[in-house]
Amino acid sequence: MPEEITRNRSGPQPRSILPADMISVEEARLRILAHFAPLPAEPAPLLEALGQVLAEDVRAGFDLPPADNTGMDGYAVCAQDTAGATPDAPVTLRVVGYLPAGAVFAGAVGAGEAVRIMTGAPVPRGADSIVPFEQTDEMDAAAGGVRGPISRRQVRIDVGARPGANIRRAGEDVRRGELALPRGSVIGPAQIGVLASLGLAAAPVIRRPRVAILSTGDELLRPGQPLVPGKIYDANAFSLAAQVRSYGALPRVLEIAADSIDAITARIHEALEGADLVVTSAGVSRGDFDVVKDVLAREGDIGFWTVRMKPGKPLAFGTMRRGERRVPHLGLPGNPVSAMMTMELFGRPAIFTLMGKPQAAERPRVRAVAAERLVNSDGRRFYARALVTFEAGRYVARLTGPQGSGVLTSMALANGYAICPEDVPAIEAGEECDVMLVDREAPLPVPAAIRA
Amino acid sequence: MPEEITRNRSGPQPRSILPADMISVEEARLRILAHFAPLPAEPAPLLEALGQVLAEDVRAGFDLPPADNTGMDGYAVCAQDTAGATPDAPVTLRVVGYLPAGAVFAGAVGAGEAVRIMTGAPVPRGADSIVPFEQTDEMDAAAGGVRGPISRRQVRIDVGARPGANIRRAGEDVRRGELALPRGSVIGPAQIGVLASLGLAAAPVIRRPRVAILSTGDELLRPGQPLVPGKIYDANAFSLAAQVRSYGALPRVLEIAADSIDAITARIHEALEGADLVVTSAGVSRGDFDVVKDVLAREGDIGFWTVRMKPGKPLAFGTMRRGERRVPHLGLPGNPVSAMMTMELFGRPAIFTLMGKPQAAERPRVRAVAAERLVNSDGRRFYARALVTFEAGRYVARLTGPQGSGVLTSMALANGYAICPEDVPAIEAGEECDVMLVDREAPLPVPAAIRA
Repeated sequence: MPEEITRNRSGPQPRSILPADMISVEEARLRILAHFAPLPAEPAPLLEALGQVLAEDVRAGFDLPPADNTGMDGYAVCAQDTAGATPDAPVTLRVVGYLPAGAVFAGAVGAGEAVRIMTGAPVPRGADSIVPFEQTDEMDAAAGGVRGPISRRQVRIDVGARPGANIRRAGEDVRRGELALPRGSVIGPAQIGVLASLGLAAAPVIRRPRVAILSTGDELLRPGQPLVPGKIYDANAFSLAAQVRSYGALPRVLEIAADSIDAITARIHEALEGADLVVTSAGVSRGDFDVVKDVLAREGDIGFWTVRMKPGKPLAFGTMRRGERRVPHLGLPGNPVSAMMTMELFGRPAIFTLMGKPQAAERPRVRAVAAERLVNSDGRRFYARALVTFEAGRYVARLTGPQGSGVLTSMALANGYAICPEDVPAIEAGEECDVMLVDREAPLPVPAAIRA
Repeated sequence: MPEEITRNRSGPQPRSILPADMISVEEARLRILAHFAPLPAEPAPLLEALGQVLAEDVRAGFDLPPADNTGMDGYAVCAQDTAGATPDAPVTLRVVGYLPAGAVFAGAVGAGEAVRIMTGAPVPRGADSIVPFEQTDEMDAAAGGVRGPISRRQVRIDVGARPGANIRRAGEDVRRGELALPRGSVIGPAQIGVLASLGLAAAPVIRRPRVAILSTGDELLRPGQPLVPGKIYDANAFSLAAQVRSYGALPRVLEIAADSIDAITARIHEALEGADLVVTSAGVSRGDFDVVKDVLAREGDIGFWTVRMKPGKPLAFGTMRRGERRVPHLGLPGNPVSAMMTMELFGRPAIFTLMGKPQAAERPRVRAVAAERLVNSDGRRFYARALVTFEAGRYVARLTGPQGSGVLTSMALANGYAICPEDVPAIEAGEECDVMLVDREAPLPVPAAIRA
């Protein structure tokens, strides 16, 4: 309840850029995304570009493949020399050259001539068809101990070759000057292959966002430290950093900031160094000790919102000044489930927008049968952690255990979030609900009706 | 056609561990996977473990949360002291302490007493309920300029508190000794959060496979080198490395090996160094210059198979000796599309098996309407590169352009592979076909019938 708590302060009031009313998830997302745009481009070595977005159109600098070449091991011939040939009435051609892949035949193939040619080698001048080994006496010669490459002076052709047969044409894949990959393409393995085949060792991509992640609170310990009474381990920095990484951005986890103005100010300054986005968790709803709010108000413009969702009601968003730059700041709730859920709903589209990714909105949804009752007790949209399966022709969503906002194991078991809307008091067991699908590792359960 | 070409050799014949007959995709995969098992475990720093598989059960070393704590900012009270309280007939309690998160209250809450307590702080002894600020005179006091933390001597309680209200119980998420994450879990952001909340700075995971990638051929140039006639750029090393990385393994791209026994032998030795899998492309079907085969036969056991699929018919698989180790080797075709497709169908499940991933099989499939005719001209299963959309209640698969095995742009545009089975001559436009879904970035098109 940020508004109430804000009143419970004697320090300077945060200068709000946005009204601190109760807003929908969609409204919060709109307000946040208004502060984001794609980052600048930079060249990235091919493999590093995986998952990034191409910042410029990539046109072919040459035909791909660069020259007509053979798709088979065989003999390059003039088709008309083989007209009417059959195994019973073959023709014999003079072998005038030998052409491995990577070499170029200096001469030309004349009447009655052939060049022995290996897959990928450029088709020599004069030839207009490739006769595969299988349709020649190549195998007989090999079986008879004749060494192919150099010693053959003639070849028997058992078929009438069609002009163009087994030839891959220059530019078959992409023609010189043609658009090979449009700006905005998400770079996957095939895109990397295309860039490599065009001779490019680096790709012009929108650079990866750098996201600084800060946990605040005197009660927090870093994993690996000994547990002492009253303290808990900081899960948020790590789960949030893992989310950031899974979105394709570069997380930077800062040391925990104690609950003091000085400590938090120092860490915020550290966070701003080079960051495209600063994410804090906790400190936006905790009453007396949410000194984070004071610091944020001093360092920039910040709004504290009450978002009509559960888990994850309190949310802060604003921008902080760093010299000429303004760095967006997303202040997430401190509860581990709330922090991850708000990162998913607000941080992910913000990061995708920075990355220039075409789909900056929510993950895909399906309709599923709720196996248990989903209760909305206070007019907020309820995102229940659920395991989605496909059974008897329908998606079924089962809750993954207690739904308290501290129960992180409920997130670990979930592959989706089942939704009870803000204006619906409850979805009864057996009724349909929306489910956001979140697990990219697991194959999506596919309806039987359209399953193989 | 490896068998024919194998006959066309005067050098030593490869010692085949498997018959070189025409085999199905499934048979090839079975033969390959028989040589793979999960790699050993190692501790990985939390964030590095993203996408890896947990090698051991993780049990909680303590209750999570470690102690009963408050879910609200408020006052810790003995519920019976507040029995019957209403805004018109409130009770007043003596404030005996103040408890921020991270602190422990040394004393106990006695009759008529309360402790002011902040979200996350452990519930003090003697108290059995938390009354939120909103149900006290806290806000009035704050509005009146009273500084909360230290100066308040008494508090007005406006409700009869329920025992247990607003208290999060110790062990609510996980109890001490309870299984928090089972061995075999794929580690995502929530799993990382759970591990952190248990105080673990590292996780026992199955280590990431190291995959050496080698391209062979005198005709190949590395991207960035100047193009010269007869040569082409090596796309395979990069697209294959990107696939390997997208599967979660660690690719290592070696320098291109020229087509000579010595050059390839040296590179193979380099590849074996520390590799869990060696992937070569080309050299398994190119006749005279497929010296790769000779080298492979000398370095270990190798089989050359003709797989009933298109693109991607020729495939080599075997193991190479490296001291006491035997390193699996996957020899892919040289055509860029064939190389990627065979990596997808055979390399991916092999790598997933090394990683201990529960789903080592193919990607999910859906049934789709073929927008164009899919022709199977030679009894091989045809994997057509397709763009899958959802339209008017059905998945539709459209070919992404020319389907030659050199046309890599067809892969770049595809989010699925439409399949014409080996025993079906053609799937006509408008008929249904199976489609393997390959694009993990794009949201899966979801049937309208089950869409929100």
